[in-house]
Amino acid sequence: MTEQKYVHGYGKEDSERLVKQSEALEGILHAEEDFPAGTQILEAGCGVGAQTVILAHRFPEAEILSVDISETYLAQAEERVRSFGYTNVTFRHADLASTDLPPESADHIFVCFVLEHIPEPEAALANLYRALRPGGSVTVIEGDHGSAIFHPESPAARHVVDCLIELQYRSGGDGNIGRRLYPLLTDVGFAEVIVTPAPVYVDASHPDLVEGFTEKIFIAMVEASREAAFRAGLSDPARWGEGIAALRRTMEPDGTLYYSFFKANAVK
Amino acid sequence: MTEQKYVHGYGKEDSERLVKQSEALEGILHAEEDFPAGTQILEAGCGVGAQTVILAHRFPEAEILSVDISETYLAQAEERVRSFGYTNVTFRHADLASTDLPPESADHIFVCFVLEHIPEPEAALANLYRALRPGGSVTVIEGDHGSAIFHPESPAARHVVDCLIELQYRSGGDGNIGRRLYPLLTDVGFAEVIVTPAPVYVDASHPDLVEGFTEKIFIAMVEASREAAFRAGLSDPARWGEGIAALRRTMEPDGTLYYSFFKANAVK
Repeated sequence: MTEQKYVHGYGKEDSERLVKQSEALEGILHAEEDFPAGTQILEAGCGVGAQTVILAHRFPEAEILSVDISETYLAQAEERVRSFGYTNVTFRHADLASTDLPPESADHIFVCFVLEHIPEPEAALANLYRALRPGGSVTVIEGDHGSAIFHPESPAARHVVDCLIELQYRSGGDGNIGRRLYPLLTDVGFAEVIVTPAPVYVDASHPDLVEGFTEKIFIAMVEASREAAFRAGLSDPARWGEGIAALRRTMEPDGTLYYSFFKANAVK
Repeated sequence: MTEQKYVHGYGKEDSERLVKQSEALEGILHAEEDFPAGTQILEAGCGVGAQTVILAHRFPEAEILSVDISETYLAQAEERVRSFGYTNVTFRHADLASTDLPPESADHIFVCFVLEHIPEPEAALANLYRALRPGGSVTVIEGDHGSAIFHPESPAARHVVDCLIELQYRSGGDGNIGRRLYPLLTDVGFAEVIVTPAPVYVDASHPDLVEGFTEKIFIAMVEASREAAFRAGLSDPARWGEGIAALRRTMEPDGTLYYSFFKANAVK
């Protein structure tokens, strides 16, 4: 098994960032869903289990199968879920780019922050479509880094965000995938595709978001690309430092940040 | 009296676009407000009266004073309001950059798509603050052209949007002002400033928005800058045509467009 190259890395700090991200975003990303007892939920690309614990908590009577391409992440996810005492999750290795999953087995498929890292999201979605029972539903949540706007706007801040987007493209992903969810799902054959933006707006009147989103999620996500940006020759320590400082400038009392996630719901 | 240079022009087509824009956006922009009978509402920058008729309709027992710097627009606004039969609106010429307005006279001030065109929005807001009675409230709604993202993304499409933004800067305005509402209002002294994003997401599942927003509002707004972009040497017919075609490409079944307005509510 080969672990896919992952722009955000597999380090401990990164795992913690991904978990914090999920916790902070729970209210934004999880809203109306409800599933009856016995529902077979497939979490495709569970990563370190950040969303898994949320699913396990929200749907205690569902049977959740969480898969990932990374054995490292699977082990962390399993440990996290066990540490919370949840017993409704099974973990399994699977590559979404292959047909590892049993056909028509899931009642609902949940995909969060996964497609943005996959070279062929169409193929992954086709495999997930195959794994979904007729009449089943899917939820896909992705960010869109190109949606980020901030005040003060500056070329320096834009530079580091562009580095992240460019690195994600070079590794075969698409950091701007949020805006593409509608065509991606309809092309694969999903029906009743409804895409809803989930924007996060931050200013000084929301100090929890200044820290919890701007600093700990958005800037931390950009920061995680630092070394890769240097290796790729896209930036250097001076430019990078200037860019991160410019992003941190948006956390001051007169600064703002706006970023949008996109959530797609569809059925088979 | 001199009419301020207005990036969108004062032509008939433009007036119709501005009215269509308001009608299509009514649900997005006007939500929770309610004012008791006799409330003195000041509409600062009524333009052709696109929002005026909405205010007049929604608050029939309020007394609305609508002002604008353009006598041309004021005449059109008055004609529009009279043609609907509303009698609760008074029109008056005023320059928001001066202290034309009586102090502490308004219970509520409504400002929509105005600050983006004004060289000194801080000064205009300070004058409006002065015109508001203590305890009164303000609503400011502005777009943010830099928030526009679309699929397919392309340098050609981005070029024409950037032309609009650049022209607006050169004429003293700021097409990206939406993200700045929070600091603008707090700096002037307004309290309890709450900014809420009002995003518009368009894909083929919303054919009314494909036509009503993407084509008739967003692309029409960009198109209105065509001649000015040529005069300023920012574009030429070939590049412009390519850019508009790329924007129209987002109206096809696999295309998407995402644009955010920002709404600020505050009190004195």
